[in-house]
Amino acid sequence: MSDKPKNKPKKTAMRTIREVDFPQWYQEVIKEADMAENSGVRGCMVIKPWGYGIWENLQARLDRRIKETGHENCYFPLFIPLELIEKEAAHVEGFAKEMAVVTHHRLVAKDGKLEPDGALESPLVVRPTSETMIGESFAKWIRSYRDLPVMINQWANVVRWEMRPRLFLRTSEFLWQEGHTAHATRDEARLETATMLEEYRKLAEDWLAIPVIAGEKSASERFPGAEETHTIEAMMQDGKALQAGTSHYLGQNFARAANIKFQDAEGGENFVETTSWGVSTRLIGALIMTHGDDNGLRVPPTVAPRQVVILPIARDEAARARVLPAASALAERLNAAVAFDNPVRAFVDKRDMNAGEKRWSWLKKGAPIVVELGPRDLDQGTVMITRRTDIYAKAPQNTDEFATTIEAQLEAIQKQLFDEAKAYRDARLRTDIEDFAAFKAFFSAETYASAGFVRAYWDESAESEARLKDLSVTIRCLPYDQPREPGTCVLSGNPATKQAIFAKAY
Amino acid sequence: MSDKPKNKPKKTAMRTIREVDFPQWYQEVIKEADMAENSGVRGCMVIKPWGYGIWENLQARLDRRIKETGHENCYFPLFIPLELIEKEAAHVEGFAKEMAVVTHHRLVAKDGKLEPDGALESPLVVRPTSETMIGESFAKWIRSYRDLPVMINQWANVVRWEMRPRLFLRTSEFLWQEGHTAHATRDEARLETATMLEEYRKLAEDWLAIPVIAGEKSASERFPGAEETHTIEAMMQDGKALQAGTSHYLGQNFARAANIKFQDAEGGENFVETTSWGVSTRLIGALIMTHGDDNGLRVPPTVAPRQVVILPIARDEAARARVLPAASALAERLNAAVAFDNPVRAFVDKRDMNAGEKRWSWLKKGAPIVVELGPRDLDQGTVMITRRTDIYAKAPQNTDEFATTIEAQLEAIQKQLFDEAKAYRDARLRTDIEDFAAFKAFFSAETYASAGFVRAYWDESAESEARLKDLSVTIRCLPYDQPREPGTCVLSGNPATKQAIFAKAY
Repeated sequence: MSDKPKNKPKKTAMRTIREVDFPQWYQEVIKEADMAENSGVRGCMVIKPWGYGIWENLQARLDRRIKETGHENCYFPLFIPLELIEKEAAHVEGFAKEMAVVTHHRLVAKDGKLEPDGALESPLVVRPTSETMIGESFAKWIRSYRDLPVMINQWANVVRWEMRPRLFLRTSEFLWQEGHTAHATRDEARLETATMLEEYRKLAEDWLAIPVIAGEKSASERFPGAEETHTIEAMMQDGKALQAGTSHYLGQNFARAANIKFQDAEGGENFVETTSWGVSTRLIGALIMTHGDDNGLRVPPTVAPRQVVILPIARDEAARARVLPAASALAERLNAAVAFDNPVRAFVDKRDMNAGEKRWSWLKKGAPIVVELGPRDLDQGTVMITRRTDIYAKAPQNTDEFATTIEAQLEAIQKQLFDEAKAYRDARLRTDIEDFAAFKAFFSAETYASAGFVRAYWDESAESEARLKDLSVTIRCLPYDQPREPGTCVLSGNPATKQAIFAKAY
Repeated sequence: MSDKPKNKPKKTAMRTIREVDFPQWYQEVIKEADMAENSGVRGCMVIKPWGYGIWENLQARLDRRIKETGHENCYFPLFIPLELIEKEAAHVEGFAKEMAVVTHHRLVAKDGKLEPDGALESPLVVRPTSETMIGESFAKWIRSYRDLPVMINQWANVVRWEMRPRLFLRTSEFLWQEGHTAHATRDEARLETATMLEEYRKLAEDWLAIPVIAGEKSASERFPGAEETHTIEAMMQDGKALQAGTSHYLGQNFARAANIKFQDAEGGENFVETTSWGVSTRLIGALIMTHGDDNGLRVPPTVAPRQVVILPIARDEAARARVLPAASALAERLNAAVAFDNPVRAFVDKRDMNAGEKRWSWLKKGAPIVVELGPRDLDQGTVMITRRTDIYAKAPQNTDEFATTIEAQLEAIQKQLFDEAKAYRDARLRTDIEDFAAFKAFFSAETYASAGFVRAYWDESAESEARLKDLSVTIRCLPYDQPREPGTCVLSGNPATKQAIFAKAY
């Protein structure tokens, strides 16, 4: 993004830069920042401490908000009986092609090799999502309007078999939260759907510094079995869209399938109205592709496992004896401060390792602030500061001033990341494409430098949407903020009342 | 335990009392406290908010300690390739009979029914534990002594197929944390094993108020593939033992299987020494069977999802208008206080429901303090307090005094629960049984009132241990604190230097 070197050291820490090969750059950032790696199981990843730490900080914030908005955490089984998942036709249709199936419950040795044994009477599916399983419980729990609403959430792993896996973005197993609620009325369920989408918008923008466009999905892009799917869509630096969180109004579809009925205040019997909503470790992929640069990852201070990394610089034992205690004291002082409602996370890296290499290891990981502290700095009462958002502007700072303003400094970095990402997104959001020829030209000719979103009128017909297929473009959403005047559909030329966001997508 | 009614209302809230049918009582407590239920999948449970909330509070404390002792969280795949799990012979032998096996990766409709399709080239096992998977990663990560120690942990679900499932105690899927570390030396690995067992002891005693005996397992009770297994053993109220947490010194067994080598400072090549350690949702079963009484669950304040439940008592609208705001104000005041290093968790139960029924619902759930607040209490500046540890001593308390001493009151309840459990355990820990005839008589004749642990000398031979089989008794551990003098083995009559804990077990 904006860290084009002014005094240009031409070498970047990533061997592959974004505009040359964005997918390759993405893999390289994950490796160099030591966030995750592929495992021996196709499509399943190992999330390493730096990646998992980001997830934990994201999770802590979202979990608090889920509870503050009236939900309680539960845990439901990993396995779903086949009979259960069959109950909602559109749902099973949507997931059948990507489900891991358990068929046996033990192994036996045969001719020196292990083989599955103990065939199950009926196979079990590893949950791709839990609407059907949780629906079964709701049917048991809910009897009367007094039992409503039921508002629960779970943090869990889910499996959707992936033929072309990519770390964080498409993995056969991923981690997520899934909220599930049941309500007496359609209005209340739709309000819940909107409330949680707004929580996701705040999580993305206020916590991950990722600007998003919130809106409703077109019918063809809905969650299998939903009446409405609402989404937040982010733009990655290659101009592609990434769906960063979804909230579904399921109507009575799952209630009918699982027979979730309640007696209303007048004694009548009704199906409940349900919702579900989720975000996943995919958000870490979004974070990388939004904030990363040609020197590696940049992590928003809100979620950085270490916000300030202190590097003691000492060439001999005498220097070490002075510098190490001073570094620890500074870390302790910083950790006593608060930023983003949590204690600051400062850390002294004492590894026995070349100083320049050590500094670059943290810049590649995207630690927001790297502090170098040597004997001369101690003499002068200063620390040498590098902000990850401006790595070529390393400069000394008075130690007391640094320590007393740490909160503001972290907040400034957070704001800078969001502002940069938003400026980038806005610059690539085309609103001037009005007919199909121009539309087609845009999405056919796009390069790294020109790719992006198109915002244009759409007539909301499946026929016009079908024209997108050859272009590998999809309707990302119909944004909530809509113009008052009608217009002309960019796909069909027909009259249209609403605008949509069109993009290639992850 | 000790709440034998003095003014004896003879009716208890549980239909089944402990001494009549302990297993049935256990199921009933879980149901009445609304903690968990069986799902449609054999052996898999649904953990409901009151059960899951206890788990979250346990987890928060342990996670902090895991980090404070130098470990970082990661996440490893749910699935393990067959080839991998075969590598450590004793390990696969130990788990082969209880492993869920994934053989297909999609479903297809045939004759209107769904069937598994897309057979995997090689089946995958759903992790029963992750030594083999994590060993693969360690082999990639570790090159030199500079990379050591590697100290990681994961919070995850695991599956061990269960033929006779019981909620929390034996479920096919359960939640746990598993720590895995690799070290350069045997001494360092054994120290790590001991450090984490001590953390588990503190978790059990200081956090869950469950007294435990720490010690080493006999060879026959070791984790499959371990050189040493260390354990904390708790006594349930029926006198049976429950293994509440284990820490394993694995030696170089898994390092050899996964080829985890490092170059030492002198340039030589060595296998690393590894450890693993875990506690699971089983601890919630231990909590129920340690603290529950004939009126339901009693939850230690440290882990109670709601520590203080305030019940507004109001017969009409006018009373409601006075009482509700006062109840909310009291909750807010309590929540601003701190107990056990966390904000107090007070809650106003506004449900529209009979007051007595509501009060009993919370006593059955084991909320530490239930507060009733009506117009007369408001007039008098008092609140009506019931402590779950003394439910027949409901008494008024000055509101200010209650609010300002809340921390001490919760701590007193916590202490009472531990003291009661310890007195109970100590009273049933027999140290006076010295020969096999008496030993056999004790374990054959035991009733609810007399069952317990025997602590006696054992000659550490497999032959004598084999005599336990017919009695369904096992050696729970060789406690760390041992007498100085040798003695006579209670099983064989041979000379022995160490004492063991013998018990029937969950």
